[in-house]
Amino acid sequence: NSNLRLFSLKANEPLAEEIADHIGIPLGKCQVNRFSDEEVQINIEESVRGCDVFVVQSTSQPVNEHLMELLIMIDALKRASAATINIVMPYYGYARQDRKSRSREPITAKLVANLIETAGADRVISLDLHAPQLQGFFDIPIDHLMGVPILSDYFLENKDFNFDEVVVVSPDHGGVTRARKMADRLKTPIAIIDKRRPKPNVAEVMNIVGEIEGRTAIIIDDIIDTGGTMKLAAQALMDKGAKEVYACCTHPVLSGPAISRIEESVIKELVVTNSIQLPEDKKSDKITELSVGELMAQAIVRVYEEESVSILFDN
Amino acid sequence: NSNLRLFSLKANEPLAEEIADHIGIPLGKCQVNRFSDEEVQINIEESVRGCDVFVVQSTSQPVNEHLMELLIMIDALKRASAATINIVMPYYGYARQDRKSRSREPITAKLVANLIETAGADRVISLDLHAPQLQGFFDIPIDHLMGVPILSDYFLENKDFNFDEVVVVSPDHGGVTRARKMADRLKTPIAIIDKRRPKPNVAEVMNIVGEIEGRTAIIIDDIIDTGGTMKLAAQALMDKGAKEVYACCTHPVLSGPAISRIEESVIKELVVTNSIQLPEDKKSDKITELSVGELMAQAIVRVYEEESVSILFDN
Ligand SMILES: Nc1ncnc2c1ncn2[C@@H]1O[C@H](COP(=O)(O)O)[C@@H](O)[C@H]1O
Ligand SMILES: Nc1ncnc2c1ncn2[C@@H]1O[C@H](COP(=O)(O)O)[C@@H](O)[C@H]1O
Repeated sequence: NSNLRLFSLKANEPLAEEIADHIGIPLGKCQVNRFSDEEVQINIEESVRGCDVFVVQSTSQPVNEHLMELLIMIDALKRASAATINIVMPYYGYARQDRKSRSREPITAKLVANLIETAGADRVISLDLHAPQLQGFFDIPIDHLMGVPILSDYFLENKDFNFDEVVVVSPDHGGVTRARKMADRLKTPIAIIDKRRPKPNVAEVMNIVGEIEGRTAIIIDDIIDTGGTMKLAAQALMDKGAKEVYACCTHPVLSGPAISRIEESVIKELVVTNSIQLPEDKKSDKITELSVGELMAQAIVRVYEEESVSILFDN
Repeated sequence: NSNLRLFSLKANEPLAEEIADHIGIPLGKCQVNRFSDEEVQINIEESVRGCDVFVVQSTSQPVNEHLMELLIMIDALKRASAATINIVMPYYGYARQDRKSRSREPITAKLVANLIETAGADRVISLDLHAPQLQGFFDIPIDHLMGVPILSDYFLENKDFNFDEVVVVSPDHGGVTRARKMADRLKTPIAIIDKRRPKPNVAEVMNIVGEIEGRTAIIIDDIIDTGGTMKLAAQALMDKGAKEVYACCTHPVLSGPAISRIEESVIKELVVTNSIQLPEDKKSDKITELSVGELMAQAIVRVYEEESVSILFDN
């Protein structure tokens, strides 16, 4: 007789099932269909009145479809008198459009935050936002989880590396903090790929800052999208004398040529999480998927207990 | 040196061109593309600072893609310091989800209105909203145009009917006001198809209220979606002795089996507007497309002059 309800939309149903198992509750009953003209049709099939509702939906590809499903679900929950509406969004789409890099561009990451609030969400739980500043795009509470522990533990527990001979590599300047966190857990040094363009319209040069020679390199990033940077970075590391190259990321966007690039690359293994569900045609022998189900379940329970406590205080 | 700017998104570029021609200005320069992962990428390529900007976009199929394009464009225009952002949306998607017909359903038509306002629109110009009440879903001004004059004029100018032997037919109770307006222009009587279901799970009976025998029937509706109602209504009219049956509507959604149903039906001709752009596979010899370009252009000029006047008063 708890007030916690968990619903899944269409982006990542297996992850939602896992989360439900970890919490020990069934998924809520809800029809998410399309009308003949592809408009989203949602009907929630059980009462949510007075409940703390959690909705699992990553805004992964096709992002606009998944986002509209989410907004419409929030609207339905609000009108069904849910007490709180909490969005569990392991992957936050449009996160890279977080500033104007040219004049007259949108800042879609902020727009999406506004849309989610306007629809009626009370809280967002997300994972490895492309920039931590995205937390400030919301006026509602946002819980920001990290994938580094899960990715690090995989290497610690499954590889008999001599960790004295490992180096964690950031593929660009923006990812150094993340690489530092992983290196702390693995107790290794870090290296940074320092891309620069000598002249306009000349190919970038991949300079490497840090000791690589004879080491096992693990490149870490938040998102791997088309795989171009990752493929080139891995090659640059091998060229500079790395023994072998692993790669890992939280969000396997893997669009366009990504899978063939990863397969052709010198990368031995790519480790990702299931923040984004990999469709069959994006699976590969080189790709290992780790689950964020337990992490998400823990966050939900923590938020739920906090909300229950705040209800106690409010009364 | 006017301050009026007109941009087109992807839903209906030919209509936007027509509108631009009627007003006598070129379309604004703007890149609307997709990143590799299908996220919308927009870059406005000319200054809009201090301008009254009009954006042409119907939220037709695929509705979620077209709606997100629109919201992102509004965000970009707002950040580019447009003076006013006016949405020219001949077809308003999700309009049918305008009330809870069961418990725990969303009211997506209202959600969409909120999203458009949140993104930063100042005004909406639309055509034949599924229910006129949708105007009240907005807190910003909305101009609500009607398709009846364009549809009526087509029959008056192109058919040598004896209009004493014509009857305008509403396919359901909800459309009687629209049929009445058309009948006033054609100077004909009206009839109503009065569907009822004798018992649950028994097929509907199509009863006809009004004189049909020997007459040319013109069925008018706002939207034709799968074409099911229209096909059955036309057959019912022929069965009751109509001489011939025409059909017309403002918004040719025409999803799923619509085209084959229209082609198989007893309907002689279906007259629609270009509020929704018909893709090649939805064209048919039976379908005549009329343009709302001039109507939209007139509305834009009227709004623009009003806004200029209000600027005069404000100073
Ligand atoms: N979906 C996307 N795919 C590729 N690039 C994007 C995407 N969204 C935004 N960007 C661009 O990526 C840049 C930001 O990426 P970053 O420098 O890694 O934070 C901006 O210049 C954006 O225009
Ligand atoms: N895209 C759609 N396609 C078909 N039916 C819809 C659509 N959107 C909403 N509806 C349903 O249509 C009904 C309203 O239509 P109406 O009675 O013609 O106003 C509601 O019961 C909705 O559930």
